[in-house]
Amino acid sequence: MELLKARILRDGVVKGTDVLKVDSFLNHQMDVALFEEIGKEFQHRFEGCGVNKILTIEASGIGIACVTAQFFSCSVVFAKKSQTKNIARAVYSTRVESFTHGRVYDVIVSRQFLGPQDRVLIIDDFLANGAALEGLLDLVQQAGAVLVGAGIVIEKAFQPGGDRIRAQGVRVESLARVKAMSEAHGVEFAD
Amino acid sequence: MELLKARILRDGVVKGTDVLKVDSFLNHQMDVALFEEIGKEFQHRFEGCGVNKILTIEASGIGIACVTAQFFSCSVVFAKKSQTKNIARAVYSTRVESFTHGRVYDVIVSRQFLGPQDRVLIIDDFLANGAALEGLLDLVQQAGAVLVGAGIVIEKAFQPGGDRIRAQGVRVESLARVKAMSEAHGVEFAD
Repeated sequence: MELLKARILRDGVVKGTDVLKVDSFLNHQMDVALFEEIGKEFQHRFEGCGVNKILTIEASGIGIACVTAQFFSCSVVFAKKSQTKNIARAVYSTRVESFTHGRVYDVIVSRQFLGPQDRVLIIDDFLANGAALEGLLDLVQQAGAVLVGAGIVIEKAFQPGGDRIRAQGVRVESLARVKAMSEAHGVEFAD
Repeated sequence: MELLKARILRDGVVKGTDVLKVDSFLNHQMDVALFEEIGKEFQHRFEGCGVNKILTIEASGIGIACVTAQFFSCSVVFAKKSQTKNIARAVYSTRVESFTHGRVYDVIVSRQFLGPQDRVLIIDDFLANGAALEGLLDLVQQAGAVLVGAGIVIEKAFQPGGDRIRAQGVRVESLARVKAMSEAHGVEFAD
């Protein structure tokens, strides 16, 4: 998606060799006009797939998911990062390891809001090691829902998550795939 | 807002005397078509106020804030609940006590994304004790931004937050004000 890549080149900030800060438009301050273009692009890519639910994970996926859902005329469910030890029986639950924050947490979705009648598009802002996405895939499977695919805004294609998840047969559509990055040379895209 | 009140009466679940579960449409599963109506209503109420930024707090405010921002053609910033001990100098920071979760946490916004040029509308899903909203007001003040007001989806008017914050001169617009509720008699609105 050229508009997105241009925005990353203009406003993204590379730290070291693997941190890409896009918090001026994507995941702290949020450019909702850009989100509309992102939503349209996801709708274009997953048109005709019968998506009737979008699943994301708190917090930074929620805004993109809600704006995208307008183009699919469907509702959104966001998976919650739980800090309670007691996971209720009323939820699907999975464990996700966060490389960014160096810890493991439980991620839950109420059983009421995901089930076999759902054709699910997963939406998230980043795909890198793939831990969050694999957690969401696990929740979809527990629910017996149909997975349509995953729509990712920025994929760090030099990290293993995308390849590993595509190898499982999951359709992953990333709007910008970063091949390499460095403070000296900035961001280089894969396509 | 009659559409919202009807939805609360239909799908809200009262637990005890002070918990109103609306997670089927507002803060876990999210009915984005309803969010569009909510966004329009906020735009109607704050029309002509020159809002150029919407501030909310993770996680459940983000979806409503992003859809609302489409009607104001402005960007959104969400305050982050921080669990790190070291608050960077690059952020505004305040402390918020969560009655729901029984703990205190730091809430931060990057200094880059809030400043004197901003005319801020705060958006959140609930107002009860007012702790989260007062934290956001503090961040707006630290930034030297202009506060236009606060748009709240559901106010528990039987709890003290709304009255206390209005008494400070803040314009608070709540789309549904709950006067009382009980498992036996359900939800009663204030107006």
